Amino acid sequence: MCALAGGVGGAKLAAGLQAVLSPGDLSVVVNTADDFDLWGLRVCPDLDTVMYTLAGLANKETGWGVADESFGALGMISAYGEDAWFKLGDRDLATHVLRTQRLHAGTRLTTVTAGLAAALGVRSTLLPMCDEPVATVLKTPEGPLEFQEYFVRRQQREEVLGVELRGIESARVPVEVARSLFETEAIILCPSNPVVSIAPILAVPGMRELLAGRSVPTVAVSPIVGGRALKGPADRMLRSLGHEVSAAGVARMYEGLVDGFVLDRADRGEEAGVSGLGMRVRATDAVMRDEPDRERLAREVLSLCSELGAG
Amino acid sequence: MCALAGGVGGAKLAAGLQAVLSPGDLSVVVNTADDFDLWGLRVCPDLDTVMYTLAGLANKETGWGVADESFGALGMISAYGEDAWFKLGDRDLATHVLRTQRLHAGTRLTTVTAGLAAALGVRSTLLPMCDEPVATVLKTPEGPLEFQEYFVRRQQREEVLGVELRGIESARVPVEVARSLFETEAIILCPSNPVVSIAPILAVPGMRELLAGRSVPTVAVSPIVGGRALKGPADRMLRSLGHEVSAAGVARMYEGLVDGFVLDRADRGEEAGVSGLGMRVRATDAVMRDEPDRERLAREVLSLCSELGAG
Repeated sequence: MCALAGGVGGAKLAAGLQAVLSPGDLSVVVNTADDFDLWGLRVCPDLDTVMYTLAGLANKETGWGVADESFGALGMISAYGEDAWFKLGDRDLATHVLRTQRLHAGTRLTTVTAGLAAALGVRSTLLPMCDEPVATVLKTPEGPLEFQEYFVRRQQREEVLGVELRGIESARVPVEVARSLFETEAIILCPSNPVVSIAPILAVPGMRELLAGRSVPTVAVSPIVGGRALKGPADRMLRSLGHEVSAAGVARMYEGLVDGFVLDRADRGEEAGVSGLGMRVRATDAVMRDEPDRERLAREVLSLCSELGAG
Repeated sequence: MCALAGGVGGAKLAAGLQAVLSPGDLSVVVNTADDFDLWGLRVCPDLDTVMYTLAGLANKETGWGVADESFGALGMISAYGEDAWFKLGDRDLATHVLRTQRLHAGTRLTTVTAGLAAALGVRSTLLPMCDEPVATVLKTPEGPLEFQEYFVRRQQREEVLGVELRGIESARVPVEVARSLFETEAIILCPSNPVVSIAPILAVPGMRELLAGRSVPTVAVSPIVGGRALKGPADRMLRSLGHEVSAAGVARMYEGLVDGFVLDRADRGEEAGVSGLGMRVRATDAVMRDEPDRERLAREVLSLCSELGAG
């Protein structure tokens, strides 16, 4: 089973899928377009959120970062006069230090990620969307903003008028991602931000062709419930970019790519519209509050995949 | 006033000197031959010990590291399967992260150190002995050992049969060190290990000539009291390298370079021997247990400098 994911929402569904599938049966292709350099360290927020979640180490209150975290290094970095706007925990810092060391030694991000995840006991395959650095830059009325600058430092206050993926033209689908997509029996687009989490994965040259070339069930889960994003700025972003802020609006962004769509019962009124896009619709409780929720939603998604596979 | 220092003992006297001198009156030239790379980060143990001590942040129980330290990152580094033999604290880690970032950007260690120390409110000038990387490698019966490998990981168990300073031939006296030595009214060799702390500073090409060229009082403080090192392996190292393990033995290593020598009252029996080397001797309590001890010893050292200056 192969899932495409961004940060918190994607990580939750991935954890549900990992829990209900056989060990080793899940691959997660993760957005790396919000990766950035902080104090000389390579930080991969989405990869780490998925890794910590699948390792059972994630901070359950925030959804990102590590549980039982301390912030000694950040306090000292602040004492050195640096602007400590990115809330880097001490345990999390270890991840960035080791990743940076290994990348500097010439190891690919795919290999580095596999090593870190394996050491933490993750039973699934964690795959960056590409090994090359890609940077999401948002066009806003205040001028261009790097993604983490917008997302963390400015708390998503600015209106997003456009998205640029710097470096995407030089990115390649890693052979590990290609293999995973060739071998999977279904593809799942997690309930992640369609604009800045899923779109960058699909924008890696060759990725859309690879997905379109597989005649396996492809199911997306709506990150919009009742016209609002469950987390983050997806709703405002969709609106300012001219998309409809609804489950159907998200489905339309995936038209031609997915043949199954999972939305929340609150959005049952949109079923007909989504069906009209040639997708089989499943309405369920799409909000993941706790681990049983994740597993239940994962089962619904897998059941829709089976239905689609049975033709 | 210009002091030459290694780690803990040097840092303590430097702190005493800083306390009794006018703000800005002290420069400390620090050994960097035990610097090393750890998980891709540049660690400078002696510079940091002196910096934390002068900033009032040092862990008073160990003498090294930062007070109120946490070890979250180290625990995680260990979880990633790395051998966590070097006890890197979270706040300490911040220093190495920022230093490494700035060095990678092409900034000299001298400038990086000045920036870090200033941010922590250090009132003295902290000067690495050189900007070039130098590595102390110890010859032992087990073969060559990198300094921190010997010092921390193997807890100084091996007999030291020789000392190699790799890279020292390419090192240069930084202009900031030269200026400090030109301007100072006295030079103080702190009670640091003469073999692996003070000798590397003196081995920077041009350093000995610079010191010899200044006709100012030059006073050394014995790190050996009652035939034993106050801290660390200096006593065993002196013995295995064929030196006499005594205050007089240390004085002999500085012959021709220093004209004043401070030893502990316990070693009064060696006064005549040290005098015979052409040094004026001051016997005092040379053990620094607390801050008043540091300041008292600093005053003794400065008073001997004055005496020597008055001719």
